[in-house]
Amino acid sequence: MSKTILALDKVLPINTLKGIRDYIPKVKLSYITLLDGGLEYLKEVYKLGWEEVIFDLKLADIDSTMVGIVSRLTSFSDSFISHSFIGFEGALDTLSFFLSKEGKGLYLVLSMSHKGWNDSFYPYLKDIARHVNPKGFVVGATKPEMIKVVRNDFPEKLIISPGVGVQGALFGDALCNGADYEIVGRSIYSSTDPVKTTRELVAKQEVRVNECKEVSENRK
Amino acid sequence: MSKTILALDKVLPINTLKGIRDYIPKVKLSYITLLDGGLEYLKEVYKLGWEEVIFDLKLADIDSTMVGIVSRLTSFSDSFISHSFIGFEGALDTLSFFLSKEGKGLYLVLSMSHKGWNDSFYPYLKDIARHVNPKGFVVGATKPEMIKVVRNDFPEKLIISPGVGVQGALFGDALCNGADYEIVGRSIYSSTDPVKTTRELVAKQEVRVNECKEVSENRK
Repeated sequence: MSKTILALDKVLPINTLKGIRDYIPKVKLSYITLLDGGLEYLKEVYKLGWEEVIFDLKLADIDSTMVGIVSRLTSFSDSFISHSFIGFEGALDTLSFFLSKEGKGLYLVLSMSHKGWNDSFYPYLKDIARHVNPKGFVVGATKPEMIKVVRNDFPEKLIISPGVGVQGALFGDALCNGADYEIVGRSIYSSTDPVKTTRELVAKQEVRVNECKEVSENRK
Repeated sequence: MSKTILALDKVLPINTLKGIRDYIPKVKLSYITLLDGGLEYLKEVYKLGWEEVIFDLKLADIDSTMVGIVSRLTSFSDSFISHSFIGFEGALDTLSFFLSKEGKGLYLVLSMSHKGWNDSFYPYLKDIARHVNPKGFVVGATKPEMIKVVRNDFPEKLIISPGVGVQGALFGDALCNGADYEIVGRSIYSSTDPVKTTRELVAKQEVRVNECKEVSENRK
């Protein structure tokens, strides 16, 4: 099974998802999926037996609002993505406590994939991340240096990387830099044949990862 | 009419909202309202003829995701709230362009009401805010000094302040410090008689604002 997470920001037919599920172990849902598909669709997606269903709400609110939102979605997901910059007290303290009580995971955003994101605040976000001690982190695949930094600072945590494909990062590169999973959205869901594209991308990823493994072994 | 915005994080009966609307000109909706009430409820709320319906999604994502979300909600709202820390390029540039094209307003969060929020990043957020040039800003009512700072930095912009009531700020205080509207949620929607509570809170706010006006006039 590949090291890929499908960013499902479009309502694909359940049968297409079944085909994709043969190659991709995890799926990430967003408000777009929710608004277009409704809760019934989320339930159908959840039932496909993914290794992990991640709800990517980019939570960034006060404690009561964030808990209010996730408590309404726990039956459709295994984990949630929240921003870290909102801080601990009155925000991530309560959210992480609630999710761990519910047996759900939390990923914190440490670096986003778009140009305007400012990585000079990383030392501050890292401190918050140590406080929260989440399951893993979101670090943009377009920021190879940041993936290396976060991998070094948190060797035991999962790193998941969006920004692969349409946003510019090459398939496999984030894995080569230390990420555990690459998040792929538009390249797959906007394809005329999403299952075929998935198969091709996953193959590309494997080739790239084998290449960088070889390079790193030759260096030893 | 009072200088209050109702934070509707609970599905109140439309008739109750009609009663509240007599005292409160604007309403702020959240994902909780959306998840519990559905789009049909949002439509009913919108029809009540508020001066402004603000969708508070605390947007904090890349451009395509944010535009994807708001484009599905423009028929139910006049304005949206986004975080500023996500930066301009590939995020707020596209969102502000899209909203202005649609004739919708944008508020940027400059300071949140909970303890964990770190105001030392304000100079950075202020720069982004000047770049985006939105309709107004969100500054927590629990941060009187920050309201004064933002009022001074942006004399022409609207300031709306959450955190009044349950979160600790007193009714009227944010207005005394320079905010244009106070956002009140739980104090009203968790009351056994929301319309009566609204009337009382609005009266309290008026008394407080008159007090601080007097103090400021005596100082002259």
